[in-house]
Amino acid sequence: MSQYKYLHKINSPEDLKNYKDEELIAISQELRQYIIDIVSESPGHFASSLGVVELTIALHYVFKTPYDKIVWDVGHQAYGHKILTGRRDIFHTNRKLNGISGFPSIFESEYDAFGVGHSSTSISAALGMAVSSCLKSEDNKHVIAVIGDGAMTGGLAFEGMNNAGVENSNLLIILNDNNMSIDPNVGGLNQYLLDITTSKSYNKVKKEVWDILGKIRKFGPNTRSFIQKIENGVKSVIMKQSNIFEAMNLRYFGPVNGHDVNQLVKILEDLKDIKGPKLLHVLTKKGKGFEFAENDQTTWHAPGKFNKNTGERKIVKSDELESPKFQDVFGHTLVELAKKNKKIVGITPAMPSGSSMKIMMEAIPERAFDVGIAEQHAVTFSAGLAVDGMLPFCNIYSTFMQRAYDQVIHDVALQKLNVVFCLDRGGLVGDDGATHHGVFDIAYMRIIPNMIVAAPMDEPDLRNMMYTAQLPNKGPFSIRYPRGKGVTPNWKTKMEELKIGKGRKIKDGKDVAIISIGAIGNLVKEANEILLKENIDIAHYDMRFIKPLDEDLLHKIFNEFDKIITLEDGVIQGGFGSAVIEFMFENKYSANIKRLGIPDKFIEHGTQQELYHICGYDVEGICKSVKEILK
Amino acid sequence: MSQYKYLHKINSPEDLKNYKDEELIAISQELRQYIIDIVSESPGHFASSLGVVELTIALHYVFKTPYDKIVWDVGHQAYGHKILTGRRDIFHTNRKLNGISGFPSIFESEYDAFGVGHSSTSISAALGMAVSSCLKSEDNKHVIAVIGDGAMTGGLAFEGMNNAGVENSNLLIILNDNNMSIDPNVGGLNQYLLDITTSKSYNKVKKEVWDILGKIRKFGPNTRSFIQKIENGVKSVIMKQSNIFEAMNLRYFGPVNGHDVNQLVKILEDLKDIKGPKLLHVLTKKGKGFEFAENDQTTWHAPGKFNKNTGERKIVKSDELESPKFQDVFGHTLVELAKKNKKIVGITPAMPSGSSMKIMMEAIPERAFDVGIAEQHAVTFSAGLAVDGMLPFCNIYSTFMQRAYDQVIHDVALQKLNVVFCLDRGGLVGDDGATHHGVFDIAYMRIIPNMIVAAPMDEPDLRNMMYTAQLPNKGPFSIRYPRGKGVTPNWKTKMEELKIGKGRKIKDGKDVAIISIGAIGNLVKEANEILLKENIDIAHYDMRFIKPLDEDLLHKIFNEFDKIITLEDGVIQGGFGSAVIEFMFENKYSANIKRLGIPDKFIEHGTQQELYHICGYDVEGICKSVKEILK
Repeated sequence: MSQYKYLHKINSPEDLKNYKDEELIAISQELRQYIIDIVSESPGHFASSLGVVELTIALHYVFKTPYDKIVWDVGHQAYGHKILTGRRDIFHTNRKLNGISGFPSIFESEYDAFGVGHSSTSISAALGMAVSSCLKSEDNKHVIAVIGDGAMTGGLAFEGMNNAGVENSNLLIILNDNNMSIDPNVGGLNQYLLDITTSKSYNKVKKEVWDILGKIRKFGPNTRSFIQKIENGVKSVIMKQSNIFEAMNLRYFGPVNGHDVNQLVKILEDLKDIKGPKLLHVLTKKGKGFEFAENDQTTWHAPGKFNKNTGERKIVKSDELESPKFQDVFGHTLVELAKKNKKIVGITPAMPSGSSMKIMMEAIPERAFDVGIAEQHAVTFSAGLAVDGMLPFCNIYSTFMQRAYDQVIHDVALQKLNVVFCLDRGGLVGDDGATHHGVFDIAYMRIIPNMIVAAPMDEPDLRNMMYTAQLPNKGPFSIRYPRGKGVTPNWKTKMEELKIGKGRKIKDGKDVAIISIGAIGNLVKEANEILLKENIDIAHYDMRFIKPLDEDLLHKIFNEFDKIITLEDGVIQGGFGSAVIEFMFENKYSANIKRLGIPDKFIEHGTQQELYHICGYDVEGICKSVKEILK
Repeated sequence: MSQYKYLHKINSPEDLKNYKDEELIAISQELRQYIIDIVSESPGHFASSLGVVELTIALHYVFKTPYDKIVWDVGHQAYGHKILTGRRDIFHTNRKLNGISGFPSIFESEYDAFGVGHSSTSISAALGMAVSSCLKSEDNKHVIAVIGDGAMTGGLAFEGMNNAGVENSNLLIILNDNNMSIDPNVGGLNQYLLDITTSKSYNKVKKEVWDILGKIRKFGPNTRSFIQKIENGVKSVIMKQSNIFEAMNLRYFGPVNGHDVNQLVKILEDLKDIKGPKLLHVLTKKGKGFEFAENDQTTWHAPGKFNKNTGERKIVKSDELESPKFQDVFGHTLVELAKKNKKIVGITPAMPSGSSMKIMMEAIPERAFDVGIAEQHAVTFSAGLAVDGMLPFCNIYSTFMQRAYDQVIHDVALQKLNVVFCLDRGGLVGDDGATHHGVFDIAYMRIIPNMIVAAPMDEPDLRNMMYTAQLPNKGPFSIRYPRGKGVTPNWKTKMEELKIGKGRKIKDGKDVAIISIGAIGNLVKEANEILLKENIDIAHYDMRFIKPLDEDLLHKIFNEFDKIITLEDGVIQGGFGSAVIEFMFENKYSANIKRLGIPDKFIEHGTQQELYHICGYDVEGICKSVKEILK
């Protein structure tokens, strides 16, 4: 720490206040360097935090945290905040098992005013706190929501602004405008923000007024100053009235340079004295101060380990035999299908890179849509496409699909529309932690009438499911697969139609039957090898479909086995194992059943393997359960 | 029909086109009268449809439906549309079992372009259709979304607009601005729309410019015309730039009078030729043409039967002994609790009347919040209030809570915040039908860690649950109750703390145990009386909590009975009965179990009693199941 002249003495925001304004520039440099130093070795989100270094320092310098509250939207930009608020020396444990979370968490620090991870929550949450402060007559308390322009496209942010405009609270919204979400930001609002920042609106008015005024010039030498007065009058009114935020009844300030820490301090000091809901528009650069990141912001959103000097990313080289990510299999397969089936369209809510939808966006741009951070819209937009005869593949991370639950039920399933939901990152996702695990989807999707719920064990099955889903009149069809790599190096198999609601036997056996759903089933193969050495012979069935269940196969299994283990990468309550039990009951079987999956609590961050272990369904856990049930 | 000179000849929109522009006024009068005539006898939504009579006629007159698509947002304003599109003579079956739906439905008519019921879906769905038309090169196709100013506050509508602004589609959004949702509309956007319609923005600019220009007047007699040119120039730019919709990249037209059918026809004809996404702002009056409705729009949103001449509503008089609605018990009890516990705040997303939150809004206005049609915000706003120490009672209809599922999980449950969710209209709601039944909540709430899931059988228990939920540190607590009346005339009981996760025995018995959750359990009492006459003696347990389950009580029941019926007003798959089966399994009991509830399909409209019967859990169905299990 000795290289950090200032930072090593800053153990809390209080310490920051010992420094003079001009020293904040040096502190910004150190904070930025510290983030680079640590994140290059302990990977995490990167470019977002670099972009708000000055803003973070200015906020903690001006406001009295934790009494004043800062709510970071999404939260992957809060690394500087964590470092300044007592977590500097444990920052290297970021996102590791038992280490600090990659996102703000109320359980981790009193400076983390609100737990985040999903997008667009900050305005609503901060408004709640600001209204609460009013009710408690804490008139001197400031509540600040820091939200990116990407997150601003989420409907929840709009709902929050709409309400903030009429509540008489002391809320400051800081719009951190870097023209990006993870991928470049899209939508009408994005164009509008560009328009403000380049002052097109005002310039256009100015030009038109000037053109008219030009005709008055002949009236004499004093006219010019009159014209300027007119201009100034028009300008102030236009800038106020032409503003979408002012329209929502929020006082608008800015745009200001988000990398001038001294200017930010001055402005925030001024804003402290202005009552009522207000918005400060701050322009920042994602990846600021690390050239490689500035030039390729999507890659450097979360780059993994890297060499901080050369910018070389330390990607573990894969040999030719390695399996691809499920995401890429999805992306390539979608293009393959879409080339033949002209009805296919692709929809992603702001995750073209993460979901690999970008493969279709590059190959067939006219039929692939990034709709911005807007999961609800992604689903209802898909419904609109489907009702008119198109066949949308709507790819949404399992955890974010929670945002569009009503749209799945009300707009798609109720109308039996042919929409294919690809639920990416189903199951435990690893180091992103509790906010991002996609563990509820099996349970919440299978209760929806008309919905086919499928989960492939491997890449060929993902392809077959996608192939099957795009055949005529299949109705609502959901396919969930995990984050990360599959098991099939030669994944480009010929696609074939799967029978809806039919599973398969992977392996015969005699002692115990394991019934699995999805890619987690691959662990059974490893477990089998271990168990065989102890003379335990398990049978293994991959159900492929949670809904409809393969009742024929289940009858066979229940007739043959009285010791059964169900395995899923999702919550136990109400999940796949529950569906198997429901079947058993309806059909009056009795068997000793053990359900493996996620227990009834939120699971923190760690590697996927570590978390499977904790939940008892890694290879070791499976073997243990087999032996227990045999006792 | 003979009194309807025009209407009786209009069997489809094609027929409408036989008439001249000037006849449309008379047709409007007839259509309005027909709605009044029928709805006064066959109750349904009322004031909304009266408000769009002229708009409906103009749309079908100008556009070529069903080739051109009209998407009605929410859909309770679409009665005129239904009458004009071949459903005039069956319109009296509206909302009745096997009759037409109270909302547009793609299964009912090719003129119903998209099924609706929930708010704010129209822009996204219509955009999907418009983009689909582009992909199919149907350049002459028009897609129109008709959305109210209330629905416009929903985040989904904003997400749709944000995307519509960048898609090069032929979408026309009609903003039906009547300054109302069911209750008066709220929020910053609402104030803004008022501002546009009263032209405050422009007038303010005009005044300021005028003040400056005043100084130029001395330059001579021609100056005035120059000034007017300046004004006109400024006006056109201001009106364009100061507009929130133009900011989203939608061309804005209006506002126009929504009750001048001839003007509407002209404008819509003009707009047909303008390519790209655009918005027409139409001013209407909810309840237009029926004086009583115009003067009390909330009451006349859905008034029940009424005398069309006197405006007298035919409310079935209740004698003193009648039980109150659960909604009113909620409202009064909340005020009672809030008077003692100053931390309690009330939140409703645009349902103050329907949920009876208005009782608190009147009694303690500073602590009761109508946040507009914005379920997501309602929940995250509640989370923000709770994290700062307040105790929010967030009341959302079960079916609409689907909109805020992610916020319940991510913002409340994950942080173990003390938010009380009151899920109104849990279970089958009756004549609103498939879009409005609140049947999934038991299944989707019970899979959320940290969540207490309760459902009262009667009014005293609702009060006790509310009392218990507001005691310190209970964490996330959900209470679901049905639409309509309870069973306890003297409901103002003294409140007492309930033990979390403890059920109760209602009645001893020996043949079969019925385990019920929620108010549907009251039917067991009636069933019992019938069964006793046949010498069948049932035991009855009310579980009170779905989560945590009362395991002690279940142990007792499973030790005593091997014939068990579970009863819930919700989906069977994954629901309460499923939870009981899961318990049974984990604890190695075996019993013959029959689960009563809603099968795996969407249930249409009818009275609650009719629908309980169809699903097999009315009194008759319960008796039948008891006898079957005894065989």
